[in-house]
Amino acid sequence: MKFSFKNDYSEGCHPNILQALLQSNLDQQAGYGEDEYSLQAKERIKERIQKKDSEVYFVSGGTQANLIVISSILRPYQCAVSASTGHILNNETGAIEATGHKILSIETEDGKLRPSDIIPVLEGHSNVPHQVMPKLVYISNSTELGTIYQAKELEELSEFCKQNRLYLFMDGARLGHGLTSEISDLTLERVAELTDVFYLGGTKNGALIGEAIVINNPVLQEDFAFNIKQKGALLAKGRLLGIQFLELMKDDLYFDLAKHANQQAMKIKHALQEKGVKFLSDTYTNQIFPIVSNDLIKVLSENFEFYVWKKVDEEFSAIRLITSWSTGDAAVNQFVEVIKRELP
Amino acid sequence: MKFSFKNDYSEGCHPNILQALLQSNLDQQAGYGEDEYSLQAKERIKERIQKKDSEVYFVSGGTQANLIVISSILRPYQCAVSASTGHILNNETGAIEATGHKILSIETEDGKLRPSDIIPVLEGHSNVPHQVMPKLVYISNSTELGTIYQAKELEELSEFCKQNRLYLFMDGARLGHGLTSEISDLTLERVAELTDVFYLGGTKNGALIGEAIVINNPVLQEDFAFNIKQKGALLAKGRLLGIQFLELMKDDLYFDLAKHANQQAMKIKHALQEKGVKFLSDTYTNQIFPIVSNDLIKVLSENFEFYVWKKVDEEFSAIRLITSWSTGDAAVNQFVEVIKRELP
Amino acid sequence: MKFSFKNDYSEGCHPNILQALLQSNLDQQAGYGEDEYSLQAKERIKERIQKKDSEVYFVSGGTQANLIVISSILRPYQCAVSASTGHILNNETGAIEATGHKILSIETEDGKLRPSDIIPVLEGHSNVPHQVMPKLVYISNSTELGTIYQAKELEELSEFCKQNRLYLFMDGARLGHGLTSEISDLTLERVAELTDVFYLGGTKNGALIGEAIVINNPVLQEDFAFNIKQKGALLAKGRLLGIQFLELMKDDLYFDLAKHANQQAMKIKHALQEKGVKFLSDTYTNQIFPIVSNDLIKVLSENFEFYVWKKVDEEFSAIRLITSWSTGDAAVNQFVEVIKRELP
Amino acid sequence: MKFSFKNDYSEGCHPNILQALLQSNLDQQAGYGEDEYSLQAKERIKERIQKKDSEVYFVSGGTQANLIVISSILRPYQCAVSASTGHILNNETGAIEATGHKILSIETEDGKLRPSDIIPVLEGHSNVPHQVMPKLVYISNSTELGTIYQAKELEELSEFCKQNRLYLFMDGARLGHGLTSEISDLTLERVAELTDVFYLGGTKNGALIGEAIVINNPVLQEDFAFNIKQKGALLAKGRLLGIQFLELMKDDLYFDLAKHANQQAMKIKHALQEKGVKFLSDTYTNQIFPIVSNDLIKVLSENFEFYVWKKVDEEFSAIRLITSWSTGDAAVNQFVEVIKRELP
Repeated sequence: MKFSFKNDYSEGCHPNILQALLQSNLDQQAGYGEDEYSLQAKERIKERIQKKDSEVYFVSGGTQANLIVISSILRPYQCAVSASTGHILNNETGAIEATGHKILSIETEDGKLRPSDIIPVLEGHSNVPHQVMPKLVYISNSTELGTIYQAKELEELSEFCKQNRLYLFMDGARLGHGLTSEISDLTLERVAELTDVFYLGGTKNGALIGEAIVINNPVLQEDFAFNIKQKGALLAKGRLLGIQFLELMKDDLYFDLAKHANQQAMKIKHALQEKGVKFLSDTYTNQIFPIVSNDLIKVLSENFEFYVWKKVDEEFSAIRLITSWSTGDAAVNQFVEVIKRELP
Repeated sequence: MKFSFKNDYSEGCHPNILQALLQSNLDQQAGYGEDEYSLQAKERIKERIQKKDSEVYFVSGGTQANLIVISSILRPYQCAVSASTGHILNNETGAIEATGHKILSIETEDGKLRPSDIIPVLEGHSNVPHQVMPKLVYISNSTELGTIYQAKELEELSEFCKQNRLYLFMDGARLGHGLTSEISDLTLERVAELTDVFYLGGTKNGALIGEAIVINNPVLQEDFAFNIKQKGALLAKGRLLGIQFLELMKDDLYFDLAKHANQQAMKIKHALQEKGVKFLSDTYTNQIFPIVSNDLIKVLSENFEFYVWKKVDEEFSAIRLITSWSTGDAAVNQFVEVIKRELP
Repeated sequence: MKFSFKNDYSEGCHPNILQALLQSNLDQQAGYGEDEYSLQAKERIKERIQKKDSEVYFVSGGTQANLIVISSILRPYQCAVSASTGHILNNETGAIEATGHKILSIETEDGKLRPSDIIPVLEGHSNVPHQVMPKLVYISNSTELGTIYQAKELEELSEFCKQNRLYLFMDGARLGHGLTSEISDLTLERVAELTDVFYLGGTKNGALIGEAIVINNPVLQEDFAFNIKQKGALLAKGRLLGIQFLELMKDDLYFDLAKHANQQAMKIKHALQEKGVKFLSDTYTNQIFPIVSNDLIKVLSENFEFYVWKKVDEEFSAIRLITSWSTGDAAVNQFVEVIKRELP
Repeated sequence: MKFSFKNDYSEGCHPNILQALLQSNLDQQAGYGEDEYSLQAKERIKERIQKKDSEVYFVSGGTQANLIVISSILRPYQCAVSASTGHILNNETGAIEATGHKILSIETEDGKLRPSDIIPVLEGHSNVPHQVMPKLVYISNSTELGTIYQAKELEELSEFCKQNRLYLFMDGARLGHGLTSEISDLTLERVAELTDVFYLGGTKNGALIGEAIVINNPVLQEDFAFNIKQKGALLAKGRLLGIQFLELMKDDLYFDLAKHANQQAMKIKHALQEKGVKFLSDTYTNQIFPIVSNDLIKVLSENFEFYVWKKVDEEFSAIRLITSWSTGDAAVNQFVEVIKRELP
């Protein structure tokens, strides 16, 4: 078997989660998220973000979280704006549009949105009532390109949204990786202060399934549970989600796992940098996009799985390598050795 | 802790499933249902139903299965018909309508639909194009009232649907219980022959989550996976679903679990019948609706949890008791003893 | 040609409207409802209802008005309630559901909703978040059965809605007929006070097309125009709607036309009553439902068109006769003569 | 009053239409498009396009036509592709997305789509089932930029669509103008052969309201009327639409009106060209986009209304001038005189 760097959801889940599932298995619990584990996990998250008035809901995956949050917020004529690389634009089979809402796409260099990116979109959508009304700004941290928001960037964006009566929603499918990046100065507490809604992604950080949606803006909390049920996302055995987040929040395991994934990626990045390899984007999270020769890709492919992301020229392509909470030193070292051996 | 007869999803999952999750945990697998476990589980289901050309998809829960199947089949102006007790009508927060489709409700005695129930609905919706076009018949087996379809009933309904160009969709959230009922003469193979789509419910029969949607009609198979992704139901770690159904299909564990649940319910039913207790409906599955005095309800409530389903008169109400794959003899015996002690 | 009593939209429009179209034809006007005629017509309606803070919008027809109003008001998980005879339930091809919202149907004797009809529906939908949330009460005046709301009835319903945080929406496709019924004590001003939204139907009362939606509740006014545009209802030549309502509101022409239609229906009703004919419902508007013998139906059909509404027994059926702003004395007299001649 | 060149729907309608409305006004006709005028008009259109098997439906406006056609064709996971200037993308308040479907936007020079524009979009949406499936190509003729499709261009696009199982839909809000452009070699018959669906726009070409949707592909004809009713577009007095198209189709009045509009625009264009004025796009229909100085704009604004379309530099902007079926020589001559006087 080749080791896979294709994504961060190739393995099952952190052993603590399985252990907790085993121990709790025959407890009888209330259904639909009213179980003790879910209630405790919600409390723990609210404590961790230091916002007692936020509300927390668990759902199974990122597309589900995105479509429920966005469709619950927008009126029929309102739309979301997103960087053109946004997951909701490209990789969710039109899930947002299927709930009736357009997404306006904004070209960016690095997958991040800044006020200066959004201003022209607002100006270009002022012909009332002939155009959709931008009302929600969708960002992800880390982004689909592996880049991250720094505290100052998020503060400026948050302030801009408030001034323009826009809601700010952060897709946190890889929030752990974003916040534990070696260059990040943003904290989870600050994310909770600066966004209207965000979620803590479990699926890509050691859970079997699960994203924890956190609604900070009280206006958006009303009746939220109905949306979860209506979209088919309310698990009868909500305990499965509660138990997982309870484990992930213990002693910040969630962040330790993400940090580990980042560190493994950085080891490979540094090995490549030492050999003078360039990258498609300058990332400090668990996704890296080195530009390597087709010959090297061929050699690497003998022992590893990964995506060839983008052809750069006839001879070179960017590949995408993703490490996870579970990526061990053995695989990383083996990869680094091939690099050292093959590159001059 | 009181023992709960409130539903069949109070506990975790069958131990074999947890064992399989443990053993497979660190295997690297392809995402989004392309893992080996899911592929094997699909094959096993197709073998079990003896329909190699059916397609199988796994999703997390019943509401999700219902909304994906129905919205994938109907054109915008077409609608579903359902018994008025149907889960999609009452307990899914308008999930089907949220995808744009009306459900026509039909009053029935026992939660089951017969051709004679549907004919007037078709006749009453013939004012083209001013009315929705009935196109899909939604049934559940066992039904929300615990009743079941016999082979002849399903054959007649299936034939009627074909003649009237209606699709027949069976909600199988409790299909195991329906088919293993002591009075059922219907088989899983026959269900697959007679329906266009059905699903095997896991959540209420020993899985943590999971329903296996089986599409028998080739016309309805095309591009189905897109619908799953669009509705947020395609798990990145699809292995979680595959592993569970692989275990449930081994040696017909799925049916053994359902049979056990039914038998535990029947023990209680017989105890009640011996004391002359009447029932709201005549059921042979894991849901029973005995009509008991308010005094008895009070006594039972000291040791057990259950729903008071429907007030019958000032003195009597029907209660709903549900047993599960996990309901042990101890709880059943304790309940029976209270009955014997309290009723003359 | 047989004279048709099939409906109240068989003819073109009141001559004043055509005259106004001719006179204004080559004026250049702003598009999309910003023309002077529309602005004036809106002012005139607001004066007539004595509510300066209401907002008025013109759309083309009743189904369009219903779907725009309802979808603009409800959040995704909220639903409408309607008498089972409601137009939105039976005759609009699922238009409301196509915008994502369920309609809960309530059986009534006379097509009218009372608080006592709605209370059980609210009680039956309290299982949060597993059921849709009733949020809007849809009524029509006159109803699909030709019956009307009296002032006291509407007051009680309005009060009930306020107490239960429900919006009250009156479909006024035949509002003129309802308010000018000889037994009505309800006024247009009072309708505007007691409803959150209502509309003045033009199509069935002398216009070519057009319904004037009046939004009385300020909460529901925000951004309403977007909904009209999004649903394809914003006419480029909005003048066509403005000119018509301007004419209809001059000297209460709108009400004169409706009154005329009612009176013509009453002439026929009285002639039938004199002969001892019974009616399906006791109506005082332009729709009557006499129960006559199949033999008489045959004779009447030789000279008139109308719908056979409902079989009563082997020998008798109810027919539906509708008169309009345009129904002349000649047709009515001719019909009455046949009655006098044929009935003993 | 200043003369307006703002759009082609500032006036009422062609006098023939008003005359026909007057003459037919008191005829009793069947409702909902079953009137004799509508039936005749449909036949006339089918004769004119020489396709007896096409189906014709009348609706009120362009946004309505677009949303009904597109939502009737696409399955939930399928999407439309459009030039980035497409009306459905920018000027319809998300009407298409509100029916659940994404529109993929393609940058073009001239508002026209070619196979080479679409190929990369198809290639970029091949990650089944994670992305929407492009299924319908939306084009307009003339386009929003006033440009037109020539026969060869439409043939190539049509062939490409067939090869790739894409439906081709032409928005014909200004189809008359496109086909009667002095440089067009495309005919209405050819449009009917090469598209799956198109419409003949009446609103912008002399009607009060009305677009005639023509469905050429039999697969798309089934049950189409339901969609019209469901979206609130089926007028009770369908005669209003039938009468108008009957008049417009008499002796090709429709094309004469469009040709007139084009010619008036060309007169202004030539006057500007003689003075060396440049244009934003090279158009031969009733929309022109001359680039003129801010000073000239100021002078022109004293006597005419028009939109300043796009700032070109500090001194110059493009303005948009639109002529209509009704634009007389007086206004054109007056405009030309100002040009001659003001420009050196």
